[in-house]
Amino acid sequence: MNPADQPLKSFIDETAHLMEKELTYILPSVWDVPDVLKESMMYSLLAGGKRMRPMFVLAAAESLHGSLKEATPVACAIELIHTYSLIHDDLPAMDNDDLRRGIPTNHKVFGDAMAILAGDALLTHAFFILSTIPDRYPHISSHCVLNIIRELSMYSGASGMVGGQAADILGEQGATTIGELEYIHLHKTADLIICSLRAGGMIAGATNAQLEALEIFGRSIGLAFQIQDDILDVTGEQSKLGKTPKSDESQLKVTYPYLLGLDESRRLVEELTRTGKDVLNSGVIPLPQRLLELADFLMGRDY
Amino acid sequence: MNPADQPLKSFIDETAHLMEKELTYILPSVWDVPDVLKESMMYSLLAGGKRMRPMFVLAAAESLHGSLKEATPVACAIELIHTYSLIHDDLPAMDNDDLRRGIPTNHKVFGDAMAILAGDALLTHAFFILSTIPDRYPHISSHCVLNIIRELSMYSGASGMVGGQAADILGEQGATTIGELEYIHLHKTADLIICSLRAGGMIAGATNAQLEALEIFGRSIGLAFQIQDDILDVTGEQSKLGKTPKSDESQLKVTYPYLLGLDESRRLVEELTRTGKDVLNSGVIPLPQRLLELADFLMGRDY
Repeated sequence: MNPADQPLKSFIDETAHLMEKELTYILPSVWDVPDVLKESMMYSLLAGGKRMRPMFVLAAAESLHGSLKEATPVACAIELIHTYSLIHDDLPAMDNDDLRRGIPTNHKVFGDAMAILAGDALLTHAFFILSTIPDRYPHISSHCVLNIIRELSMYSGASGMVGGQAADILGEQGATTIGELEYIHLHKTADLIICSLRAGGMIAGATNAQLEALEIFGRSIGLAFQIQDDILDVTGEQSKLGKTPKSDESQLKVTYPYLLGLDESRRLVEELTRTGKDVLNSGVIPLPQRLLELADFLMGRDY
Repeated sequence: MNPADQPLKSFIDETAHLMEKELTYILPSVWDVPDVLKESMMYSLLAGGKRMRPMFVLAAAESLHGSLKEATPVACAIELIHTYSLIHDDLPAMDNDDLRRGIPTNHKVFGDAMAILAGDALLTHAFFILSTIPDRYPHISSHCVLNIIRELSMYSGASGMVGGQAADILGEQGATTIGELEYIHLHKTADLIICSLRAGGMIAGATNAQLEALEIFGRSIGLAFQIQDDILDVTGEQSKLGKTPKSDESQLKVTYPYLLGLDESRRLVEELTRTGKDVLNSGVIPLPQRLLELADFLMGRDY
């Protein structure tokens, strides 16, 4: 059976299972890490979540006939980056959230100081995981891994995710236009999704044209995903979201529903999803099916 | 003239100058980084400081006939890691310090949220800088750089610097023995110094025996450096330290002077410095002179 013939549900479950297994053992057992720090890191890492970025890494590798197994460390590294960003974003100095993935946020359990350090440690450890790939899979070159490290540091750093977060915080202090909002969403959310797709592609030996297609797909889907998040913050239920709904409103955050209304926001999600899918259907990606299914799944989700 | 014949003072000045120049341009000008985030990153990065870790990187490269220029990006990356750790350590949730390097701490100027993000961005960017080394110096292999990335992520992460910081915070909540204190100092401070020496060696093509000598030197000197810091916190003047003295005492921190007294602490600094120097004098390092001078200089400093 072609792996892409597997129903999406079982792919989602398999990704979650692969991640759970891999993430449990990412800290080498010989390492001397203070227990509380380790607990704090693992608490947020194993709290579940959609594992959407890992799914994109694995699906991108699969779409180019790559190995899911070999893409798993990349998926892990990106999940560590995503998790650290949630821990830091939830801090009282930032979004001040009490609930994440259905359980108390990291700082609510371990205190602010430990949460800051757990975030720093997860961020740092993402690069450790990447650095070990050629040892585990000798046919993957150091050159390829170094390129992935460069991309991850760009997409998740000052010019990417952290830059988007900074713009978001600065935006709270003044008026925000639709252009500024797009800037925030593109960087805060879409950049790490683009990175997931490109890095999954790189591990599978993508050509430049294929990386470009994955990037354009990621930009559209990433933006759609964040707008959907904004919509769910207005319409969603806490039991499904795993976090407090209406938190944007209570923090006076400017969102797509706030600027455009719910109907127009929903239309935008559909349009962006269609745009993303069109690029993948252009023929440059040999097995786009799973990525297409993921795009539809994310658009239709209620959590 | 052999570079190691240059007086130490001019080496220190040259390092500071190289760093200042390099650090000013580390963010690619084409990158779209929010102004305030960039300012916050640069504020702490260009605030001066001893540039001790860069000096160790460059001196280690020099001690193996390596090029200072080629070691400079490594020195930069490690200085970014050091700077991010200071920004996060100074936060109200951590050490709550108002003064650093003679000027207000990052969060005092930019707010807690931006300080957290500037730290995250600096940490992430350190790995970007390393990833570009083979482009700048094609004869340095991706394999070598990937090894440096692995070491930096170990020495600065959960098993290294962040682990030491976590132990320090946990220690404040209970009794601390001399063994626990050594654990904290080794990880919180010595690990990044060891990493500086090893990474400078690796860029210069060090053998395993040479890396081991640099590591043993780093462990002794790193511990001596931190004990000297503790001593200066008791005896130093704010104008020279650039930070508030007696902050350990006011935070009820357990330090070497607190546990052993000032005289015994001073003796320990001398003993550790001697131990470190002995390893370098064993013949495995071709040009150890600069490193030996640095060890003496650090032991004798009053800032």
